[in-house]
Amino acid sequence: MPYFSNQIRVAYADTDQMGIVYHSNYLRYFEISRTEMLRSQGLVYRDLETEGVFLQVVHCELDFHHPAHYDDLLEVRSVISQLGKASLVISSEVWHDGNLLVTGRVKLAAVARNTGRIVPLTARLTEAIRQYLETQMPE
Amino acid sequence: MPYFSNQIRVAYADTDQMGIVYHSNYLRYFEISRTEMLRSQGLVYRDLETEGVFLQVVHCELDFHHPAHYDDLLEVRSVISQLGKASLVISSEVWHDGNLLVTGRVKLAAVARNTGRIVPLTARLTEAIRQYLETQMPE
Amino acid sequence: MPYFSNQIRVAYADTDQMGIVYHSNYLRYFEISRTEMLRSQGLVYRDLETEGVFLQVVHCELDFHHPAHYDDLLEVRSVISQLGKASLVISSEVWHDGNLLVTGRVKLAAVARNTGRIVPLTARLTEAIRQYLETQMPE
Amino acid sequence: MPYFSNQIRVAYADTDQMGIVYHSNYLRYFEISRTEMLRSQGLVYRDLETEGVFLQVVHCELDFHHPAHYDDLLEVRSVISQLGKASLVISSEVWHDGNLLVTGRVKLAAVARNTGRIVPLTARLTEAIRQYLETQMPE
Repeated sequence: MPYFSNQIRVAYADTDQMGIVYHSNYLRYFEISRTEMLRSQGLVYRDLETEGVFLQVVHCELDFHHPAHYDDLLEVRSVISQLGKASLVISSEVWHDGNLLVTGRVKLAAVARNTGRIVPLTARLTEAIRQYLETQMPE
Repeated sequence: MPYFSNQIRVAYADTDQMGIVYHSNYLRYFEISRTEMLRSQGLVYRDLETEGVFLQVVHCELDFHHPAHYDDLLEVRSVISQLGKASLVISSEVWHDGNLLVTGRVKLAAVARNTGRIVPLTARLTEAIRQYLETQMPE
Repeated sequence: MPYFSNQIRVAYADTDQMGIVYHSNYLRYFEISRTEMLRSQGLVYRDLETEGVFLQVVHCELDFHHPAHYDDLLEVRSVISQLGKASLVISSEVWHDGNLLVTGRVKLAAVARNTGRIVPLTARLTEAIRQYLETQMPE
Repeated sequence: MPYFSNQIRVAYADTDQMGIVYHSNYLRYFEISRTEMLRSQGLVYRDLETEGVFLQVVHCELDFHHPAHYDDLLEVRSVISQLGKASLVISSEVWHDGNLLVTGRVKLAAVARNTGRIVPLTARLTEAIRQYLETQMPE
């Protein structure tokens, strides 16, 4: 299945005294990856917020198979693995030198800016994601 | 069941432009909580590393029920929910004003400092945890 | 001269692969210190924002004399070293085991929430700081 | 004078509840910028550490003129503004849409990995920087 892919260079700030990337930083890498994935579909998340809808992280899980190190040029691959009425799940993988380092899933729920309540995903977002998912489907 | 509890004040640095705590920061709060839990059992994690064993995060998952805000004085509760030969699982909850904000689990594996390989938990660590778990058991 | 003092424990997340605290984290420690200093004067910064005024960092400088390490229980000392019409300067020091590790100064300017423009410090804030400065003065 | 320039996209993680980039994150941006500047000169900082020398931040200062916002594609410009026997100073600027947002200077000292003591910059580093500085000079 096709996936969106981008590269992220590990900063010194991201390492800890074990000499590896501190685990919480992968959530930052995932955030960058899904933002660029949406942008590649013509969806700028910043605009979505301007329209009054936040995508809030409501669940995440990560498995750490191998550590990443300072200055590694990581490849982060993301796919939309689930689409609900008010939420979507994005699955991501971090690769380096042919090794799968980290796998993870982040569930985002649409939340109204003014009330903080969960609301349906906007039509524009759902439509863009549907089109995206079709391109991910095997012919 | 008894749990270890400590308080963490939300810093401005921890917030994002939604006006809530950015999700990855809870992993930092969990780290602080389990370090203090171990310390309360006489186990200083820093000493463990000096003895040549790292506790590396190999899995984590978090559910975000309600957001925490700047300056909130959070209560973080942690228990050791599983003890294996080479790993342990710590379950944590974040509370504020009587509301459960976040639940999570972090699995840590013992890794040898020099080889990076998974090794059995040290006897001293296992023994301390066993004693701790007994105090957690219902009478 | 009297100063406000609080303790901050170095988290694993704050270290880098040199085995020391990554330099930018001291700005976080300074933030926590000045928030608690203001709180000790009855000023809750969160309330200030509710009243429509942000205190934005417009300048900072830090000197790093000795590194702090994981699990160190640092003492952060802060004083208000300058008070202007629309800004204040807070000077901070980080101590550990009798050693001065870091010195720094952060200048904050009052900014209106709605316009982003610099505005005079609120009367309540100025008054509280004046009272605070008097307690700092030698008799 | 020529300078090294690279682009950094502001992540959601970098913002705070003021809706702007939290000030300490610019130090991370500066780190990324100087690493890429050195790389453009054929100097991989990671290799330098392997050779036993750390470049430790001993001083930094920043002026914040205008805030950066989420998703801004910032341009970070860096030059080596001073070269000593055991230290160098890198001056950086953050630009967006023709506006100068932040200026800063970071002083790095060479420190021996095993002793933590300040040592002369390695010949290879000094030579590479000298060559770099010559390219910065007006003809």
